[in-house]
Amino acid sequence: MNARRISRVEVVPVAFADPPLLNAVGVHEPFALRAVVRVRTDDGLEGLGETYADEVHLRRLAAVAAALPGSDPFATTALRRVVADVLARGGGAGGDGVAGMITGASTVDRVLAPFEVACLDLQGRALGLPVVDLLGGRVRDAVPYSAYLFYKWAGHPGADADGWGEALTPDQLVAQARRMVEGWGFTAIKLKGGVLPPDEEVEAVRALAAAFPGTPLRLDPNAAWTVETGIRVAKALDGLVEYLEDPVPGIDGMAAVAAAAPMPLATNMAVVAFDQLPPAVAAGAVQVVLGDHHFWGGLRRSQLLAGTCDTFGLGLSMHSNSHLGISLAAMTHLGAATPNLTHACDTHWPWKTEDVVRPGALRFVDGAVAVPAGPGLGVELDEDALGALHERYLACGLRSRDDTGYMRRFDPAFERKLATW
Amino acid sequence: MNARRISRVEVVPVAFADPPLLNAVGVHEPFALRAVVRVRTDDGLEGLGETYADEVHLRRLAAVAAALPGSDPFATTALRRVVADVLARGGGAGGDGVAGMITGASTVDRVLAPFEVACLDLQGRALGLPVVDLLGGRVRDAVPYSAYLFYKWAGHPGADADGWGEALTPDQLVAQARRMVEGWGFTAIKLKGGVLPPDEEVEAVRALAAAFPGTPLRLDPNAAWTVETGIRVAKALDGLVEYLEDPVPGIDGMAAVAAAAPMPLATNMAVVAFDQLPPAVAAGAVQVVLGDHHFWGGLRRSQLLAGTCDTFGLGLSMHSNSHLGISLAAMTHLGAATPNLTHACDTHWPWKTEDVVRPGALRFVDGAVAVPAGPGLGVELDEDALGALHERYLACGLRSRDDTGYMRRFDPAFERKLATW
Ligand SMILES: [Mg+2]
Ligand SMILES: [Mg+2]
Repeated sequence: MNARRISRVEVVPVAFADPPLLNAVGVHEPFALRAVVRVRTDDGLEGLGETYADEVHLRRLAAVAAALPGSDPFATTALRRVVADVLARGGGAGGDGVAGMITGASTVDRVLAPFEVACLDLQGRALGLPVVDLLGGRVRDAVPYSAYLFYKWAGHPGADADGWGEALTPDQLVAQARRMVEGWGFTAIKLKGGVLPPDEEVEAVRALAAAFPGTPLRLDPNAAWTVETGIRVAKALDGLVEYLEDPVPGIDGMAAVAAAAPMPLATNMAVVAFDQLPPAVAAGAVQVVLGDHHFWGGLRRSQLLAGTCDTFGLGLSMHSNSHLGISLAAMTHLGAATPNLTHACDTHWPWKTEDVVRPGALRFVDGAVAVPAGPGLGVELDEDALGALHERYLACGLRSRDDTGYMRRFDPAFERKLATW
Repeated sequence: MNARRISRVEVVPVAFADPPLLNAVGVHEPFALRAVVRVRTDDGLEGLGETYADEVHLRRLAAVAAALPGSDPFATTALRRVVADVLARGGGAGGDGVAGMITGASTVDRVLAPFEVACLDLQGRALGLPVVDLLGGRVRDAVPYSAYLFYKWAGHPGADADGWGEALTPDQLVAQARRMVEGWGFTAIKLKGGVLPPDEEVEAVRALAAAFPGTPLRLDPNAAWTVETGIRVAKALDGLVEYLEDPVPGIDGMAAVAAAAPMPLATNMAVVAFDQLPPAVAAGAVQVVLGDHHFWGGLRRSQLLAGTCDTFGLGLSMHSNSHLGISLAAMTHLGAATPNLTHACDTHWPWKTEDVVRPGALRFVDGAVAVPAGPGLGVELDEDALGALHERYLACGLRSRDDTGYMRRFDPAFERKLATW
């Protein structure tokens, strides 16, 4: 039967070029950090996972990686207990371990995720099956993604303008959207907000609605607004967006806005862990959960989230951070296996110019990515690219994401927005 | 990759000998009905499922069986849509399709279940993996079951006494329990109640508690009591049972008893489908859900139920109807994959003298069944036994379970108990 055992686990941090994308807490630094998790078995198989690479998180990943040899790569549920035990023995100190806007998520689930994905990739390779078949099989062949618009500078300060150029006005955002839709075929459009005063962002959404009639739109200010503003803006956006994402912080705040908003509220901030579902359900705080296997504990626990949303009448979509091809493959297998994916998923994919996987396996057609044909996740590491991006990580000096600190180098008075406007 | 397709599906009803076990709606007939589902692929593999065999249910199973050839046996999530479509086209008429006490369950999930289990068995056989490894792997090697005591007659009227003899008094129940514990090693004991007036059943529980100090006990009157009685009996059983099962009917009734009961309330009647979870959670109606893959839609949807219970702070155990070895194997794989199985599972196993699977794969040691070692479910059909029990089905004349009708042949004034006492 299955006598395979994990023999070696490697965690490789990488840094890849990222444009100066603006958000409520600052601006993306010149490099985004990710970690590639490589799980190997004694019979020569390898499975891949991808996760954050902030320093505290890397330390936890290393502690789990050291504990895994000898484990059964098919026992992913038991793996959660291993992770919890490792963290309880000391790896758990140090706070969330990821900077940015997702706090309150389960540290165990966030550390577990890349190992679970890598084990599923490895299982699929061992069995000659795509990961989607390990998740109950596909209910769709291709997973729809949303264009992800950002206010942005023309280029990083001191560097040349990037290929996308400046986007600080409604017209510039419409041009950005047009390029995304023409290049990738997206059939839904999301705007990252929380950058300009709310009424200016409403104007941008109006411009997008006029330019793309019938295309579902979304606005995500990352909780930059007060409840009063959230309600006012929600009413102003009536009929313009399919959902409004995280207008305000917290379950109580979201519930207050939801009670008055004419559209569903979506979240990847107020509900980011299983223990937040009961209070959110009781309060009617959110109508759409943006799942993310990177912090919900991997693909099978994301299926649990999906089923829970179905049971409790919540919509489901998918959140994205800047990511590489291993994650897009995992997101696509998960999305293909999820019946109640009620909205196109987020992805930062078009903003990325470098990767650790060989090109070809992941293609956008009409805004959707077909499940890769190969076994496991269906993507192959490019060892040279991985090596180069790891060297970049070592050289670039970044060790934790810090959008706020980077912004303050150019605007010392900058303050993060949280229930600010 | 996976090009296997389902080529043929057979549904074989069988009848196996069943003792005269008493409950709130009557008495078990001389034969229990089950259906064996055989799913075959074009490359000669076979997977097994087991379910109810009431006539309306059999008709639905046949309609789905006819629709399956050509389907991917790995696409079990998509299978649910196939079942729903078949039922919507006409197979859905005719009520619950199972007699007895589980009404309100999802017809789609109940019809889906044996096909999903058979596909998982087939997948495991194709891959050389036990089903538990398709469910996230094992968190335990053996699954604990509970002794399941029944008030019973010495034998079916007109027939010889069976090997168990009469059990209508506390002493006789203690003797029955002793035989169960000695023979199978059970470490928990459940009494099926709703047969005698509540105070007599409390006396029986007291006798069991005195005879088996420290052993977790349960009483299940199948909603035979009023809320007033439920509260009174719950208080009388304080400290004697680990949970009280379905004292009264319905979510509101259970919530009323739960608010006053000193112990958790368990259910396989008030919450038997996903759409009952939100109102039950909101009302605080139950503290332990007794899952049952036969009506919760198979093994993966039972995992969804388990995860939902974990998220919402509910305990989890497993319900049983009279069943054969295919179901015990499926229950064991599921239980081995379920981290939050907080109580020993129910099984009618010791009451059964016949089976359709070859002996040896399923053994009780210390009240627990180890996950069978073979691929898939790990049990093999005994074709001769299957043929004989199918002949028995054809000859016995029973077409739907009818405990009440059978009881009335001997006690014409008998009335089903539902919120009666
Ligand atoms: Mg967001
Ligand atoms: Mg019961």
